[in-house]
Amino acid sequence: MGVVSLLGMVVQVQVPATSAGISGDGGTICLWMAIAVGVLALVAAWMLARHVLCCESGTPEMQSISNAIREGAEAFLRRQYRTIGVIAVILAILLFVGYHMSARTAPFAMKTVISFLVGAVCSGLAGYTGMYVSIRANIRTASAARGSLNKALQIALRGGAVTGLVVVALSLVGVGVLFLLFGGLENPQSVPYELVGFGFGASLVALFAQLGGGIYTKAADVGADLVGKVEAGIPEDDPRNPAVIADLVGDNVGDCAGRGADIFESTAAENVGAMILGAALYPVFGVKGILFPLIILAINLIASIAGVYVVKTNETEDPMRALNRGFYLTSVLALIGFAVAVYTMLDGPMVKPLWLLGCGVVGLITSFLFVWITEYYTESRYRPVQSIAAASLTGPATNIISGLAVGMETPALPVIAISAALLLSYYFGVQGLSGVAGITDYAKGIYGTALATMGMLSCAAYILAMDTFGPITDNAGGIIEMSNQPESIRERTDKLDSAGNTTKALTKGYAIGSASLAAFLLFSAYLEEIKVIVADKVHLAGGYMPPGWSFTNINLAQVPVFVGALLGAMLTYLFSSMAIKAVGRTAQMIVKDVRDQFKENPGIMAGTSKPDYGRCVHIVTGAALKEMVMPGLLVVCMPVAVGLIFRHFSASYQATSEIYAPGTILPVPAIAGIPVNLAGAESVAGLLMVGTIAGILLAMLMNNGGGAWDNAKKFIETGQYGGKKSEAHKASVVGDTVGDPFKDTAGPSLHVLIKLLATITLVLAPLFV
Amino acid sequence: MGVVSLLGMVVQVQVPATSAGISGDGGTICLWMAIAVGVLALVAAWMLARHVLCCESGTPEMQSISNAIREGAEAFLRRQYRTIGVIAVILAILLFVGYHMSARTAPFAMKTVISFLVGAVCSGLAGYTGMYVSIRANIRTASAARGSLNKALQIALRGGAVTGLVVVALSLVGVGVLFLLFGGLENPQSVPYELVGFGFGASLVALFAQLGGGIYTKAADVGADLVGKVEAGIPEDDPRNPAVIADLVGDNVGDCAGRGADIFESTAAENVGAMILGAALYPVFGVKGILFPLIILAINLIASIAGVYVVKTNETEDPMRALNRGFYLTSVLALIGFAVAVYTMLDGPMVKPLWLLGCGVVGLITSFLFVWITEYYTESRYRPVQSIAAASLTGPATNIISGLAVGMETPALPVIAISAALLLSYYFGVQGLSGVAGITDYAKGIYGTALATMGMLSCAAYILAMDTFGPITDNAGGIIEMSNQPESIRERTDKLDSAGNTTKALTKGYAIGSASLAAFLLFSAYLEEIKVIVADKVHLAGGYMPPGWSFTNINLAQVPVFVGALLGAMLTYLFSSMAIKAVGRTAQMIVKDVRDQFKENPGIMAGTSKPDYGRCVHIVTGAALKEMVMPGLLVVCMPVAVGLIFRHFSASYQATSEIYAPGTILPVPAIAGIPVNLAGAESVAGLLMVGTIAGILLAMLMNNGGGAWDNAKKFIETGQYGGKKSEAHKASVVGDTVGDPFKDTAGPSLHVLIKLLATITLVLAPLFV
Repeated sequence: MGVVSLLGMVVQVQVPATSAGISGDGGTICLWMAIAVGVLALVAAWMLARHVLCCESGTPEMQSISNAIREGAEAFLRRQYRTIGVIAVILAILLFVGYHMSARTAPFAMKTVISFLVGAVCSGLAGYTGMYVSIRANIRTASAARGSLNKALQIALRGGAVTGLVVVALSLVGVGVLFLLFGGLENPQSVPYELVGFGFGASLVALFAQLGGGIYTKAADVGADLVGKVEAGIPEDDPRNPAVIADLVGDNVGDCAGRGADIFESTAAENVGAMILGAALYPVFGVKGILFPLIILAINLIASIAGVYVVKTNETEDPMRALNRGFYLTSVLALIGFAVAVYTMLDGPMVKPLWLLGCGVVGLITSFLFVWITEYYTESRYRPVQSIAAASLTGPATNIISGLAVGMETPALPVIAISAALLLSYYFGVQGLSGVAGITDYAKGIYGTALATMGMLSCAAYILAMDTFGPITDNAGGIIEMSNQPESIRERTDKLDSAGNTTKALTKGYAIGSASLAAFLLFSAYLEEIKVIVADKVHLAGGYMPPGWSFTNINLAQVPVFVGALLGAMLTYLFSSMAIKAVGRTAQMIVKDVRDQFKENPGIMAGTSKPDYGRCVHIVTGAALKEMVMPGLLVVCMPVAVGLIFRHFSASYQATSEIYAPGTILPVPAIAGIPVNLAGAESVAGLLMVGTIAGILLAMLMNNGGGAWDNAKKFIETGQYGGKKSEAHKASVVGDTVGDPFKDTAGPSLHVLIKLLATITLVLAPLFV
Repeated sequence: MGVVSLLGMVVQVQVPATSAGISGDGGTICLWMAIAVGVLALVAAWMLARHVLCCESGTPEMQSISNAIREGAEAFLRRQYRTIGVIAVILAILLFVGYHMSARTAPFAMKTVISFLVGAVCSGLAGYTGMYVSIRANIRTASAARGSLNKALQIALRGGAVTGLVVVALSLVGVGVLFLLFGGLENPQSVPYELVGFGFGASLVALFAQLGGGIYTKAADVGADLVGKVEAGIPEDDPRNPAVIADLVGDNVGDCAGRGADIFESTAAENVGAMILGAALYPVFGVKGILFPLIILAINLIASIAGVYVVKTNETEDPMRALNRGFYLTSVLALIGFAVAVYTMLDGPMVKPLWLLGCGVVGLITSFLFVWITEYYTESRYRPVQSIAAASLTGPATNIISGLAVGMETPALPVIAISAALLLSYYFGVQGLSGVAGITDYAKGIYGTALATMGMLSCAAYILAMDTFGPITDNAGGIIEMSNQPESIRERTDKLDSAGNTTKALTKGYAIGSASLAAFLLFSAYLEEIKVIVADKVHLAGGYMPPGWSFTNINLAQVPVFVGALLGAMLTYLFSSMAIKAVGRTAQMIVKDVRDQFKENPGIMAGTSKPDYGRCVHIVTGAALKEMVMPGLLVVCMPVAVGLIFRHFSASYQATSEIYAPGTILPVPAIAGIPVNLAGAESVAGLLMVGTIAGILLAMLMNNGGGAWDNAKKFIETGQYGGKKSEAHKASVVGDTVGDPFKDTAGPSLHVLIKLLATITLVLAPLFV
């Protein structure tokens, strides 16, 4: 509890410090404070990890299982990071060369490449640390479950909290330190643009981590089920199945490391995007408007630590209720912190901070709405899951049809929620800054949507702790199952496992919600950046910028933009198809290996000799890493190709001169006589925006459809419609298997794809003009 | 053959007539000629129908089956048209009232309502006539199959050609006569706007026809299969199955009447849209540029009649080859006609007609590409279908996963083809008119894309004949099967049926391709119309329009436009979900009724007494009609709601004044001091454009995924992977059943949805400003 009081002191300190900052140069204090909180949070994470690691680690039998999981996961991560490292270094070189060929200066190029590499390393570090603890927390949770439910719950959540804190703190410290080193306090308006590399590095690692981990986890799961449950007729997590360890490893590398990198990039990208938008409002808020997102992350960390520490339960309570109590406390603290930050940092003459606080509230409410909507679509209490279960009575075909119909229905409510959040926060932003002169209403409104995104992400660390809780309890259950512990202990871990399944589904809803809201923020940052680049070019050529000119025109009625939009939407489909096929191919390799093992060593099925778990782990590791490369490169290359190809189109398509027909006219392609060609930048924007919309919908379909199928199966297993072993159950198993690559590979990878599109366009913007 | 030579004469006459028209007023001649060809095509269709109906109509047993199908289909269509009629009349009244509340004058409102009703009636008439012939051609095809394959093929194709000709000719005559009656020859620039109602009427009927028919056909199919093949273990088309007639009726009302209405609306909407764009080029081409699309339709009719008449085969040839010969002839004739039309009608000083012909060629090539890509994804010779078949070996789950992965891959190549077609035809349009002054490059390029769309649709009548060939041969096969004809005859109808399945899949690819290309044309027409409405308002208020002002700015970076885009994409998902669920619910009703019939009358299964086919037909009719209303109304209401709500947003969002920041500036919201609020019109455009993109991709996924599942099953039935009754076959049946509502209900309905969105926004544009 020492950490809490320590951090509590920081909260105490923070308020006067930032208040003092109003008069004059509060930026330095804000920045140092944010970095300090980030470092303290890392210390807190270290203490939490030590606390977890000091717990008792079970019987030797349990330990041997846990060790096998740990070795598999660490081997995968090592090889994965090596592959990603190679790709990242190649991209860094290409980036450096590309920047030199555009109008960017050498120091700018160097800074972008440095922040790209730092972002990539931090993202990898966050994923690795989180997993390091999770794969050790699993056995301790299992062991604690032999004592009490409360103890097990706390270990699992605190193990998860290490991931949550490390992810958010590294994002905060990384951006903060780079800002400081790049001289952000002296040039606050230009340095945020040098940080976009950080977001891109984070996204790149996240994409491959989520994609590789997602392919791994589902290939192992599907393969193990196909050959174990279906062919050999042995139950799930049976130690005779050679693929069972690979399956448990998959939970860690997919859900833990994957989602950790996903949320890391969310906070990183949102951070950098919001700082760019803050730079546009520099005349109003000064440097504090730019540093505001960092302070919100700091508050996030403090609130989440408090939330984790209050979670406590007893033997009879549903663990979900205990987890929710922590979530509510975190939300309330985050809200209070947000209010304090708004009133101390975003105050000023003519600013109405209550409206700005309103933006944050909109974001927070949106996160609750997303969680509730996800619950509605994926929990067996409600109509959607029950309709799938009922449809299983007439066989697998109707189960699938009904699940797809539910999946396609799911985007409706979230889209309405996002729409309302965007419109409201835009309106609040305009109102809050209505008295401020010299800033367009558009910039004010967009800053409002940025505040809403920060509000939505203001509980990220706690949410991530709940998410990582999932694979830890899942693994704990597996260890208990495989080491033949008594039924009463198994009941406890089942309870935790079921709560973990719920938290995994909810955080996926949360992740896609925050990605949707952040998307608009990142578009706007992209438009701001293009404007700055154009201004640079014009100044370089000795021209002048027309006052108030801004690049905010992504006109879908232009053919190149429309084609970009078509290609962006298509990209999400093609990527998902490739990801799903990769799972299928990898699963086939497992099926083959397990069949071989059964054939080579008949003692396995008899229970007299142990299967070679490591061989399966090795095979799936190699296959998943190979399979992640193509879809990943597709996402990286497509926007670059579109931008570079379409930048040559202007002459023939006259996009920028003719589309805004004479008289209406954007002073482009000739800004004050300097020719500027925006066709490339505009078509990439079309790709980005419509690709994002298509990706959000497809991800929702897959996540929620997959979750609904899973829970329809579990609902039948509770005894409905004939219960286990009935025909309806068989049908529901088909649906669950179909849903697996949807909800754990393609869906989550699409979140990352959306943000990678945004960060890659931000980074490469100079090449498109 | 009399018809061909008669129409051949018309072609002879046409060239000098239009050539004469270059100097001075060629419009009158063009218009009358187009109408005359349309009327002659109707006569030709009547002769074809008489020819088909005079053929021998089989044994009394066959007749009794055919009569049952006919009665069921006619009863459904009667009730369906009654329902659609009520909806159409209500909408006509609302439209009239709405127009009066906007700035539109009473005569304009009246003309729009009249063209709406005419469009709706023509669309219904086209669907009805086509089906009238098909449900009579089926038995004659079956009967002829007892003689020779060639005879059967010709009857089926000519029966299908009646639909093709009637659909295209009614579209031509309807638009032509309305243009004439509304004084188009006197006011050629304004009358096209009064015809948008025609397109909307056609779309509205098409949506309900396709949706209701699609629900009917797949509910009957899935229901009959579930309860017959799966539960009772009797083969497909077994006369003991009480739902078997409903299944055969479904082929007619879904594929025939549904797709007929779909293509009718494609040609109608494309016609009207292209005339509006032609009006924008009035200074270049005069009235002939406006009438050009009608002449292309006339050529389409002539070429298609010739194509139908050359189709001939022998006993050993694959019928598909014979059908393709006809298609190639039609294409060549259409291309020649297109060239003649371009050189005679679109010639003028400074015009380079070769480039404009190039646009048409681009369209024609695109239609071939779409057909080939569809073939690749849905035929068992190629990788995609084979991968699904192979995945069936490991059970239904992997079959489904693999089918969905194929489905998600399918949009990639078509999207690239559309993108290339748009960019090329835009470029060709700009080049072809580069010497013309006073017209923006944008208008020139867009006219190029319109020409490409006309090129793509220039074989529509023949394509539709091939499409309707599908249900006729399917029904013929069913009649042969049910009336216990010898194996040799069954082989002939199986050959035809297999060709019919291919043509159905290809035409779906063609329909979505033409919808994609036409979509861009219709957006542009919408933008043109908004411009005219704004000009009207400004003139009415005594203001003046800035020279060259045009409304071509659908800026996705604006929050209301982005929200419109999100909602548009979401609409396609929600609509598909509703359509699929409707199939599921209706199929359940059939399952229940068939079970009841088996229970009430044990003699059915024993073969001693006949089931009550009519009861199933009656039940599915009522259910399908009920189920089609909600999704249909959703599509109609959503754009209206978005437009009407967002038109109130401008004040707070400052969309139109601030987004185009100071200095850049569109002279809106105040055009010359007159306030004009475009937020509603712009957000609807966002909804329309991104809804279209999302709809195209989803439709491709569903059509091609469904087709691939179907053919994977058929591939296994040829003996691969264990053949019929193997586990792989069972798995592939699951995939086929899942694909059914995809490819025959939701997918085709999405084509219509896309075009309905376009026409409804065209019609309601005055309400959004």
